[in-house]
Amino acid sequence: MERIVVAIGGNALNQPGQEPSAEMMKKNLLHTTKCIADLIEEGHQIIITHGNGPQVGNLLIQQDISKDEVPPFPIDINDAMTQGSIGYLISQSLKNELQKRNYKKNICCLLTQIVVDKYDEAFLNPRKPVGPFYEEKEAREIQDKKKWVFKEDSGRGWRRVVPSPNPLEVVELEAIKNLVCSDFVCIVGGGGGIPVIRNINNELEGVEAVIDKDRASALIAELIDATLFIVLTAVDYAYLNFGKENQRKIENVSVEEITELMKEGHFARGSMYPKIESAKKFVEETGKSAIITSLDKVKASIEGKAGTHIYL
Amino acid sequence: MERIVVAIGGNALNQPGQEPSAEMMKKNLLHTTKCIADLIEEGHQIIITHGNGPQVGNLLIQQDISKDEVPPFPIDINDAMTQGSIGYLISQSLKNELQKRNYKKNICCLLTQIVVDKYDEAFLNPRKPVGPFYEEKEAREIQDKKKWVFKEDSGRGWRRVVPSPNPLEVVELEAIKNLVCSDFVCIVGGGGGIPVIRNINNELEGVEAVIDKDRASALIAELIDATLFIVLTAVDYAYLNFGKENQRKIENVSVEEITELMKEGHFARGSMYPKIESAKKFVEETGKSAIITSLDKVKASIEGKAGTHIYL
Repeated sequence: MERIVVAIGGNALNQPGQEPSAEMMKKNLLHTTKCIADLIEEGHQIIITHGNGPQVGNLLIQQDISKDEVPPFPIDINDAMTQGSIGYLISQSLKNELQKRNYKKNICCLLTQIVVDKYDEAFLNPRKPVGPFYEEKEAREIQDKKKWVFKEDSGRGWRRVVPSPNPLEVVELEAIKNLVCSDFVCIVGGGGGIPVIRNINNELEGVEAVIDKDRASALIAELIDATLFIVLTAVDYAYLNFGKENQRKIENVSVEEITELMKEGHFARGSMYPKIESAKKFVEETGKSAIITSLDKVKASIEGKAGTHIYL
Repeated sequence: MERIVVAIGGNALNQPGQEPSAEMMKKNLLHTTKCIADLIEEGHQIIITHGNGPQVGNLLIQQDISKDEVPPFPIDINDAMTQGSIGYLISQSLKNELQKRNYKKNICCLLTQIVVDKYDEAFLNPRKPVGPFYEEKEAREIQDKKKWVFKEDSGRGWRRVVPSPNPLEVVELEAIKNLVCSDFVCIVGGGGGIPVIRNINNELEGVEAVIDKDRASALIAELIDATLFIVLTAVDYAYLNFGKENQRKIENVSVEEITELMKEGHFARGSMYPKIESAKKFVEETGKSAIITSLDKVKASIEGKAGTHIYL
């Protein structure tokens, strides 16, 4: 029996090109919750974390369009809202899947704030694009007014960029530990957690930032003594020379070896690289192993029959 | 030491006429969390529930305005989102208040689904107005298309009405109990809980309804063995002949007496009546007492020096 943190992408609910309706999100989730129910039925303790990219993006778009009627919220509150919506949908879908199998298990979702350093250098160099696309003129006007930073996004228009600081501390850690140790399936750290800093009075204060959900998940896995950390992605393995003729899947790899491969530039910066980085961090900090794989191969991966396994 | 469920109104964050911005919500909350921190410092176990009227209303308005870009969510998901935003703000504000006092206490917010009966007669007679006002023509068009029910609202326009069914079961009850018994301050049942039914396969399914937050809070209080249930409102007491020359505050009242006063029509249907009804229900089911009072008098009320006390 393993205690496993499974990090699900925000795309498990909304896939590019699909209408982001509630029905579609529920439909998309069915496969995810089936695969996770399999792990629960095997007797593993499961802690679910998830992304929120498409969902928080849609909230920002809605708030921007309706800004003359209702003032838009900062990102921390929007993250909290997506923890609500996504946490609810995952929790309900998983509960129903287990119910079908006559498997009794309590599931719950805890709001999660994650502390970042207010001096994290990411605040000096915001890079993570969020929300709607703007025309250059409008972007510049907002930039002057709100002090947001904008960047041109691959010819598609101007987009706000926010910092992506390192997660340091999980505010609700004791509650998560308590529930995990009492054998609840917990959904936590949604969207990388609600980003907060400690201000000059040591009080918590929300910040306009986005914590990478795989980094946050690795931290949670470490702090709750997970025995295994799984990062789900669209592919069954991490690959050498991905997408090229000579691509080759990585099955078992040590931290030392993967560090070398990362330096050699095998992994795409915006997608596989941060996943491997987070998996590697977990392995380094805990001595336990991590797996990068797809939802379909998650069960086989735990049995050692698929996926990229990273070990110390 | 009491185990107290305190039900806070959605107006604790957004007051009528104010701009519903994040800053304003945070500012409004400071007083609420101070008063609740007082109770925690006294050594009471506190479970916080809260309304979400103004907040879910704003979400529905935002989604209506931007509906051509992003499909609006049904009410259950919107409720889940407000559990996220409000739960986060209360949790953070309370944590900071306790931090100022050097008082260490863990606070957490659990998403909460509450089961209602799909045959609840409220579904045949929706009455609870939600979301934006429409012109009559538009209301009729939406009514035909989406099968929503609309009613004219005191000359201000047409508004969607949804059912307000009775809360029956708290899906996350075991998790709440677990955390309460481990001495966490828990924020639960926000907005009356996310309304779900059990469908023909005994699966959970969200419904377009709004559970009265005081009723939901009374149920939670009963199920977690609270020793005291407090409903917060704008006034320090429930009154006989409220607003008239001969108005008289009610200090101590038995269930039998208050039932008589309810029948005599002393309490306004849309405001004090449901609060008293929920308080009375808790007292009847548990034999413990309930208090109706204002935030400012909550501490004095527990000491027996203020508030309307209802006992068996």
